[in-house]
Amino acid sequence: MAAANGDACRSVGGVPRPTNPMVTPLLTDLYQFTMAYAYWKAGKHLDRAVFDLYFRKNPFGGEFTIFGGLEECIRFIANFKFTEEEIKFLRSVMPACEDDFFEYLRSIDCSDVEVYAIPEGYAVFPKVPLMRIEGPVAVVQLLETPFLSLVNYASLVTTNAARHRLVAGKSKNLLEFGLRRAQGPDGGISASRYCYMGGFDATSNVAAGRLFGIPIRGTHSHAFVSSFMGLDEITDKTLTSSDGSNTCEDFISLVQNWLIRIQDSSSLHGTFGETSQSELAAFTSYALAFPNSFLALVDTYDVMRSGVPNFCAVALALNDMGYKAVGIRLDSGDLAYLSVEARKFFHAVEKEFVVVGFGKTSITASNDLNEETIDALNKQGHEVDAFGIGTYLVTCYAQAALGCVFKLVEINKQPRIKLSEDVMKVSIPCKKKCYRLYGKEGYPLVDIMTGEDEPGPKMVGFMIYHSFIDW
Amino acid sequence: MAAANGDACRSVGGVPRPTNPMVTPLLTDLYQFTMAYAYWKAGKHLDRAVFDLYFRKNPFGGEFTIFGGLEECIRFIANFKFTEEEIKFLRSVMPACEDDFFEYLRSIDCSDVEVYAIPEGYAVFPKVPLMRIEGPVAVVQLLETPFLSLVNYASLVTTNAARHRLVAGKSKNLLEFGLRRAQGPDGGISASRYCYMGGFDATSNVAAGRLFGIPIRGTHSHAFVSSFMGLDEITDKTLTSSDGSNTCEDFISLVQNWLIRIQDSSSLHGTFGETSQSELAAFTSYALAFPNSFLALVDTYDVMRSGVPNFCAVALALNDMGYKAVGIRLDSGDLAYLSVEARKFFHAVEKEFVVVGFGKTSITASNDLNEETIDALNKQGHEVDAFGIGTYLVTCYAQAALGCVFKLVEINKQPRIKLSEDVMKVSIPCKKKCYRLYGKEGYPLVDIMTGEDEPGPKMVGFMIYHSFIDW
Repeated sequence: MAAANGDACRSVGGVPRPTNPMVTPLLTDLYQFTMAYAYWKAGKHLDRAVFDLYFRKNPFGGEFTIFGGLEECIRFIANFKFTEEEIKFLRSVMPACEDDFFEYLRSIDCSDVEVYAIPEGYAVFPKVPLMRIEGPVAVVQLLETPFLSLVNYASLVTTNAARHRLVAGKSKNLLEFGLRRAQGPDGGISASRYCYMGGFDATSNVAAGRLFGIPIRGTHSHAFVSSFMGLDEITDKTLTSSDGSNTCEDFISLVQNWLIRIQDSSSLHGTFGETSQSELAAFTSYALAFPNSFLALVDTYDVMRSGVPNFCAVALALNDMGYKAVGIRLDSGDLAYLSVEARKFFHAVEKEFVVVGFGKTSITASNDLNEETIDALNKQGHEVDAFGIGTYLVTCYAQAALGCVFKLVEINKQPRIKLSEDVMKVSIPCKKKCYRLYGKEGYPLVDIMTGEDEPGPKMVGFMIYHSFIDW
Repeated sequence: MAAANGDACRSVGGVPRPTNPMVTPLLTDLYQFTMAYAYWKAGKHLDRAVFDLYFRKNPFGGEFTIFGGLEECIRFIANFKFTEEEIKFLRSVMPACEDDFFEYLRSIDCSDVEVYAIPEGYAVFPKVPLMRIEGPVAVVQLLETPFLSLVNYASLVTTNAARHRLVAGKSKNLLEFGLRRAQGPDGGISASRYCYMGGFDATSNVAAGRLFGIPIRGTHSHAFVSSFMGLDEITDKTLTSSDGSNTCEDFISLVQNWLIRIQDSSSLHGTFGETSQSELAAFTSYALAFPNSFLALVDTYDVMRSGVPNFCAVALALNDMGYKAVGIRLDSGDLAYLSVEARKFFHAVEKEFVVVGFGKTSITASNDLNEETIDALNKQGHEVDAFGIGTYLVTCYAQAALGCVFKLVEINKQPRIKLSEDVMKVSIPCKKKCYRLYGKEGYPLVDIMTGEDEPGPKMVGFMIYHSFIDW
């Protein structure tokens, strides 16, 4: 277990700064600075301290946590340095402190800090340190709050995403739609990033897509549908076929004809009457703009009596021009029932008009989904192919915080403990080594911790894997 | 009701950019761009649209919400402009879109957007628009997600802070300690800002203090206490008196003498035995660093048998030197009981050693506090003067999201509605005017909405106040 320190990191091509420019050495609790001053006054600031960063209980009543946020912590310490403006501000906040202390602050970086961590994205468990941080006590204390701020939510939302993936199953598309309901702009960006790490397929968040290379998805909203009055608003009605071989001069008429054919077809006759012309105009307009990726939100007025028939009319018109519509999105109502009914409608269209594959048209569901509602949908039976999940996912509504802590376990090679009347809160002292033991089949069995100088576990019938990676 | 548009804002000295540099025009859902393209393709992008931003239900099962986030929205639109890099990225995300569309995006700003809003910090209620946004439909749609992202959490956490203030009462000091548990770094910074707006007195978050001028508070942690082995670690034992008139060469002995005097005093004899020397060293060291603002965390080992006696010994030694100790912080255990016991101890010290005012030494409580626990403490009876509140406050644990929505209510002077199988989700159409009616005593009575062209409410026995302010 060798250590690469901050300087080494920087010398290897330079570690980028934290993604959020607001993550600076001032993004910490004031008491880290008052303590730094007290350490410095006592001549203790260089005492070699070891802190463990860990949590006490898995979130969401679950049995695992996924570790997130490590990369941002590394970026943070690799670039840790106070600016003159920051020093000036600190001086104004702590006017009674001696000048030499601010000289000391000016001088510090994390070149003497060592971080040992479990790799980001690994399943982790209570009390086993996610990170062990060693260095001068005053400096390492300054890292406590930013590290916790970077790890707590990242790990929580990654875990939440992984849990949603488990309940939805491998075959479903999972889309993160949470930006508007997230806890602030950075909450939204972090959510998109860590949900992707936790097993989601894409996000609606353009900024996050750009920053982290996450696939981005999106089509249109209810407002788009209701912004249209009728088909006469569409001025350019032409659509060139997918292969470029011909142009339809009046795509609107093509759509209208298809709507009549669906209405008059033997199997669908009578299932719906007059559909919303506002909606039909919106769908047609969207299809003209995105003939290759037509996905319609079908619940602005009435899913089965307007949205789905209108979608099918536009999709069949697109089909005539060589384009394959993507599908529909349901954003309200009984998603299990509506998805089953929509699927039946698609199958009827496939059969009636011999459009191979139309029955498999994709159905996306959204609207306040979470683990429980997806589980309930699974039990009811549904025909949803993709879930768009927002509020409950990104705010971790079921448990909005993970209680990671950062505890002193050793100083100057002396073990330290924090006692508490609450047994859960008593810290485990000593600098530790942690192992993850794997069975012969390659599955992890158990994590164990030993003192730094104790011998590791013996290999008797199982593999040993040392889960701490050096940074 | 006149409107100042984005250009006007900029011409008035320039509106600063959003506080978080990550708040850019790309911080939105992809569908806002796909819709913009479809509007543009249909020649509808300049249609004059009116959107209402509102919520449907007060959070936390309560009867009010405090509106937050408006300033950031104004900063956002006043500086709304795509960079070349952003245009390039959007082109890569929507490769099928025509070049001229990106020229259009390049050209847009919010100079043609009007925003009418209730002032930030006001109490607001369901369904009454917090903001009315008018402008070209394609542009206003691009604002939906960032506005919601800026308003939802801001309003939620401001409301949460205000509720904590109500339950704690006016006389208590409320300190926001949530950075480490917030939903990401920006969640922490926003929390500090909006908790202050909601009625808190200070934050522990240095960066937020710097950005928004919020008072910052902090002393030391358990790690500071347990980092000390004993009093012999303290090398510089001198302390000059508050008035500079004399210097104590051995402040440690002064503290130790006071501890013995407390132990031997008639009223406190036998209430405690040997106290933690690690803790006593930490307190002494902290007092030497901050003699003017000595506040000790007293629960690292045992509150009544170590923390409080050690604190009193140091506080009395400081008193000898002309300094007044601030107080203690309790971070675990039965806060009501411990605060009452600590208060008794302080009163006994005041009486025993005739130190006027010592009985009123401040007691701060922290440890997973929230509205309910503060209410429970009030019912039990306690002696806490200040509450440090973190996790439950900043993550809005009791309800982690406010469901603000952004709905089209009019386009080209035609009212629009969003229907839904869920009656709560049906939008109220039409461009509206909103009034807050006040009684003669100056208290608000009710908010009412009228159509834009309807006459306002008549003044019959009450004042009328128009709650929409122009920006």
